[in-house]
Amino acid sequence: MEIVETVAQARAITRAWRAQGQSVGLTPTMGYLHAGHASLIRRAKEENDQVVVSVFVNPTQFGPNEDLDKYPRDFARDVDLCSSLGVGLIFHPQPEAIYPPGYATYVEAPALSVNLCGRSRPTHFRGVLTVVLKLFLILEPRRAYFGLKDAQQFFILKRMVEDLCLDLVMVPCPTVREPDGLALSSRNAYLSETERRVAPLIHQALVRAEAMARAGVTQVAEIKSAMAEILERQAPLIAKDYIEFVETEGLTVVEELTRDTLVAVAAYVGKTRLIDNFLWKGLDNK
Amino acid sequence: MEIVETVAQARAITRAWRAQGQSVGLTPTMGYLHAGHASLIRRAKEENDQVVVSVFVNPTQFGPNEDLDKYPRDFARDVDLCSSLGVGLIFHPQPEAIYPPGYATYVEAPALSVNLCGRSRPTHFRGVLTVVLKLFLILEPRRAYFGLKDAQQFFILKRMVEDLCLDLVMVPCPTVREPDGLALSSRNAYLSETERRVAPLIHQALVRAEAMARAGVTQVAEIKSAMAEILERQAPLIAKDYIEFVETEGLTVVEELTRDTLVAVAAYVGKTRLIDNFLWKGLDNK
Repeated sequence: MEIVETVAQARAITRAWRAQGQSVGLTPTMGYLHAGHASLIRRAKEENDQVVVSVFVNPTQFGPNEDLDKYPRDFARDVDLCSSLGVGLIFHPQPEAIYPPGYATYVEAPALSVNLCGRSRPTHFRGVLTVVLKLFLILEPRRAYFGLKDAQQFFILKRMVEDLCLDLVMVPCPTVREPDGLALSSRNAYLSETERRVAPLIHQALVRAEAMARAGVTQVAEIKSAMAEILERQAPLIAKDYIEFVETEGLTVVEELTRDTLVAVAAYVGKTRLIDNFLWKGLDNK
Repeated sequence: MEIVETVAQARAITRAWRAQGQSVGLTPTMGYLHAGHASLIRRAKEENDQVVVSVFVNPTQFGPNEDLDKYPRDFARDVDLCSSLGVGLIFHPQPEAIYPPGYATYVEAPALSVNLCGRSRPTHFRGVLTVVLKLFLILEPRRAYFGLKDAQQFFILKRMVEDLCLDLVMVPCPTVREPDGLALSSRNAYLSETERRVAPLIHQALVRAEAMARAGVTQVAEIKSAMAEILERQAPLIAKDYIEFVETEGLTVVEELTRDTLVAVAAYVGKTRLIDNFLWKGLDNK
């Protein structure tokens, strides 16, 4: 396994692989890898000759009052995990390698960034789109693997790939969970013992929503209020950021569960903001 | 010479060329080709095995009150010119091929877009960056040719190429002029006879600025007022949009002529907005 920090090195390695006819799968990460990342890497390994993992805590996707400085890092452990999973290359750039002095160019998808996390984090998706486009252009993967815990991110990136005519396949991968339902996230490391105990309520609210939808409830307002009630059981330890229902094409808010819908929650557990979601298959697509 | 309208066709042709080891040069245009475009195409032909000309009046680079609908078009004449110059492919997409329904992704360089044309045309460079990135990703040229009449466009696109790690060379080409100095532009077709007669004053203001700079004047305010005086000779037929001096890295306004500086003018001649400029080599780079 190779570990490189520069764009030129990373590009040279992936080009050599492609020149040998080897397909490249990419798993972009911010490091502090957990079993969710491992599932992406395994899938990439199954479907490609070579797997690249990028480990980069991307400053442009953090807002000014967010957790960039304290975002958890353990590169030695990330290296061990990647090595054990058969990764061929870790691309681990320093911020200056991605954003050199005078850097000026950003990618955005304003219409898809107004709801859900885009509302609470107005510059977040601009940062995500910019860094992921750069990774795609540097590494030129055949397939790229993303977890559906970050569902809005997946939909926006998939739209970018189509919009910019990028020649790669976006592969969505299911959210990996703790036994009690909590979605894996590097940010779970921030939780105190008490916070960790109540955090699965986010998942429970989504489970309740899915059960109501299966039972035939179509009024979003009714489902949202049941979800909010579940989160409120542990107020103020849990504080809702949003509970939103959006259709999966334009990510616009829906009032009725008829088409394919992303049902998403963001909540603060103590000071830690966590997100989770499920995808509801609309009647037309069942 | 092939003429295609779809992304897939254009990509297939340029890919086949590259697979045969042929280099591809691209000249992006909005059509209504003139001798300025011809000079870009000739240069591309000299330096590459194959030349692609894109002909696309890009709607996203026009503001709501600009001249998208009346922008001059003569595709048959463009085809003849390209054919006579040995172009291998004309990519002539319809707007829906570039911006299909639900299109959401845009590229921008806000810090480089605040001055000069970015001030008068706030969404212009977002449209330019987006369409040119798409052309680069679809056609994957080795070199791309742009006229320096649109100097801010060239600097912003060059920055995009560096920022996004695109593997191509941006080739700046000198402005081509009428015998009386007027910079060639498809928009010159809008000018009445009277307007056409006074339009060269824009160039004359720039010639005066360059003469003053050569004579050792370094105060931008002094040069700007001499330039404004020249344009005012034909007021109100000519109305200044801007006269600006910006350094060529970050495109920020300068008060003194010391470093490399772009000296740029935009002016309305009647209702037609024309631009022109020259590059002043700073003392450090002489």
